[in-house]
Amino acid sequence: MTIGLSRKLIAEALGAMLLLAIVVGSGVMGERLAADNSAIALLANSIATGAGLTVLILIFGPVSGAHFNPAVTAAFFAAGEIKAAPATLYCCAQLIGALAGVALAHAMFDLEILQLGSTARSGAGQAIGELTATFGLLLTILGCVRFRPEATAVAVGLFITAGYWFTSSTSFANPAVTLARIFTDTFAGIRPGDAPAFIAAQLAAVPAALIASRLVFPRGAPAA
Amino acid sequence: MTIGLSRKLIAEALGAMLLLAIVVGSGVMGERLAADNSAIALLANSIATGAGLTVLILIFGPVSGAHFNPAVTAAFFAAGEIKAAPATLYCCAQLIGALAGVALAHAMFDLEILQLGSTARSGAGQAIGELTATFGLLLTILGCVRFRPEATAVAVGLFITAGYWFTSSTSFANPAVTLARIFTDTFAGIRPGDAPAFIAAQLAAVPAALIASRLVFPRGAPAA
Amino acid sequence: MTIGLSRKLIAEALGAMLLLAIVVGSGVMGERLAADNSAIALLANSIATGAGLTVLILIFGPVSGAHFNPAVTAAFFAAGEIKAAPATLYCCAQLIGALAGVALAHAMFDLEILQLGSTARSGAGQAIGELTATFGLLLTILGCVRFRPEATAVAVGLFITAGYWFTSSTSFANPAVTLARIFTDTFAGIRPGDAPAFIAAQLAAVPAALIASRLVFPRGAPAA
Amino acid sequence: MTIGLSRKLIAEALGAMLLLAIVVGSGVMGERLAADNSAIALLANSIATGAGLTVLILIFGPVSGAHFNPAVTAAFFAAGEIKAAPATLYCCAQLIGALAGVALAHAMFDLEILQLGSTARSGAGQAIGELTATFGLLLTILGCVRFRPEATAVAVGLFITAGYWFTSSTSFANPAVTLARIFTDTFAGIRPGDAPAFIAAQLAAVPAALIASRLVFPRGAPAA
Repeated sequence: MTIGLSRKLIAEALGAMLLLAIVVGSGVMGERLAADNSAIALLANSIATGAGLTVLILIFGPVSGAHFNPAVTAAFFAAGEIKAAPATLYCCAQLIGALAGVALAHAMFDLEILQLGSTARSGAGQAIGELTATFGLLLTILGCVRFRPEATAVAVGLFITAGYWFTSSTSFANPAVTLARIFTDTFAGIRPGDAPAFIAAQLAAVPAALIASRLVFPRGAPAA
Repeated sequence: MTIGLSRKLIAEALGAMLLLAIVVGSGVMGERLAADNSAIALLANSIATGAGLTVLILIFGPVSGAHFNPAVTAAFFAAGEIKAAPATLYCCAQLIGALAGVALAHAMFDLEILQLGSTARSGAGQAIGELTATFGLLLTILGCVRFRPEATAVAVGLFITAGYWFTSSTSFANPAVTLARIFTDTFAGIRPGDAPAFIAAQLAAVPAALIASRLVFPRGAPAA
Repeated sequence: MTIGLSRKLIAEALGAMLLLAIVVGSGVMGERLAADNSAIALLANSIATGAGLTVLILIFGPVSGAHFNPAVTAAFFAAGEIKAAPATLYCCAQLIGALAGVALAHAMFDLEILQLGSTARSGAGQAIGELTATFGLLLTILGCVRFRPEATAVAVGLFITAGYWFTSSTSFANPAVTLARIFTDTFAGIRPGDAPAFIAAQLAAVPAALIASRLVFPRGAPAA
Repeated sequence: MTIGLSRKLIAEALGAMLLLAIVVGSGVMGERLAADNSAIALLANSIATGAGLTVLILIFGPVSGAHFNPAVTAAFFAAGEIKAAPATLYCCAQLIGALAGVALAHAMFDLEILQLGSTARSGAGQAIGELTATFGLLLTILGCVRFRPEATAVAVGLFITAGYWFTSSTSFANPAVTLARIFTDTFAGIRPGDAPAFIAAQLAAVPAALIASRLVFPRGAPAA
């Protein structure tokens, strides 16, 4: 069954929109209810994001591959599995969807639609955090696609739930998500000036993950 | 194997009853124990509801489809997969079951069986929340049925766990659930006057989800 | 492959032992760390129990059916799937294992091995809670065995996680577990005098669940 | 498909590195945010570790078996499924990876790379805790490999999430992890002098689990 590019782009945009609505919305709800205990807010945020992302990959994966993430699209481009033109359109759809998702979250919570982030997220530690998060996310995807494709959705959701906690940057791990989170001044926000270092670290993880993937995962027929 | 309509209606009523017992009961327990930290109460409420709903869909899905929700029944009616008469009976069974579930939760927690909700849930933001929640729930169901039917139960449970957090209305996403929650003055309750706007938003999501589903999910043989 | 009765009994005893070590141990740890917020302790207790129970059913299910519960054994006996003699031995193995598990939890946490519970758990509401919990547990098992046997372990784990929250009695749902929890004066304990009503409610759920199962789940070949 | 030893060793080292980054990193984040409520910190730590470990076993399991743990390698060596030379190299790769993971966690959180643990973890109760944790972990692996190999990753993740709560020692259950956690003075750390008793208990669990496995799990063809 061939799936047209327009369907794939709608899937990427709709998935990215719902993903950002989940990331930003659950952060707002968590912060409002948690009575200043940030750990409880992050627990809610991490569980909601992991659960929601799993669902989005389950339903949009068979259509577009459910990238929702320019770093993922770049990795598949580098691996020769998507061409330059559709890859570029994928990234545009992801970014448009992500921005729409932030606006949707603000509308749901009666907040200003247009905002600018003010949460400081900087320093070498957080850059290493984003590098680690994106490296781990890509390795998860490449490993699952190779050996356990039916488990990809759950694996990515679990990785992001873990990543919110084990990386110092709370695992943005996605340039489209990072750009969109500039435009919210809530729990999930980021200062505009801090975004470039995040995105640079995320993109640096692409070749690292591809090299690690070739070293670890053998080619050829699936092992199962 | 043909399954008779009476079995299906019992499944819808029993499933809706247990669903409401879970939604209302875990809200009562959460609020009693959480020492005024609403985030911890909602965390318990969202985990219990997602876990319980997954189980109910697993066991009743093969019998009735496990709708438990007039918005879901309406979507399958609009898609031509259930006729008008059984669809109407489904909605009646769902509502009766849901009301019984609220009463069961009150009986378990030694509360007045008959109550009227007093929690204010109103405003444009919450209506957008219900629209988003129901839209996402229906898209989850339509996408899973199309590509990954065996994952539907887990996907719906995960979506609702996420929805409790990322939508401003905590994702009622179900007209029968909304009507039943009018009759509890606990954590899960809703003021009678606020219910119509919730239900209107939920029903408005049905055509929106059907259109999105046709735009995104290709027809024809399953991709797998 | 025929599996001998002695292997089955070891599986039942070992499974019940680890189950009680999990129920009691995670309750102790939760209460020690939660700084008097019982909701956080119950959240830990419910997540640990659901997760651990899923694992125990996964590994012991193929050997003994992973009952760990006289109410489950009684239901299978009533359904003609286990004879009286092995059913009686199953219940003995479950009880011995459960008592050993309580002792193991006490040993791990440097507590007196022999204790008597002092937590009051009484009243009509809690009896209805145990009836609902055991009814739901049995329906989960009977429905999964009928349609989705490979999902039984996860479904039971999720049901118990939900049950800790949505039933007023926190879902003991198991006579062997109830008897064993008499012998711990910790978070999971129960006053000896309150146990008989719990067990009566659990046993009353067996015929109720069998009747509901026949009304809802059609016989014959699996639907899938 | 034959997989070379070098790929396997990279998988063991990379997996152990990411595992320790998760264990130590999520502990640091939990403790920083939890406002002195250790239960919330352990909840985050246990959810992140269980989720992350599941992912690591999913992707590295088809390459190396995803031991990441000398106790697991020792059990497979005793069962004749890995020879002495590769087993020794596995343990070295695990230890090197684990130490690198601790350093990575420190780098992400802007902490001193080289630290020495100061958390007291001693006494008979904790030794029994480690014996129970490692026994349960090995039985989980041996049971899943025997009957439900595709569920191993999820089962091990769930067991460890439960183990953090139900064992008094919070389930290190792994000699390489124990040695590595000597080198962090954070939530996950351990005093150097307390590590030998932990490791002794873990190794004592290997023969116990192998004996229990032979008593419970029948040989021959899989039951399914």
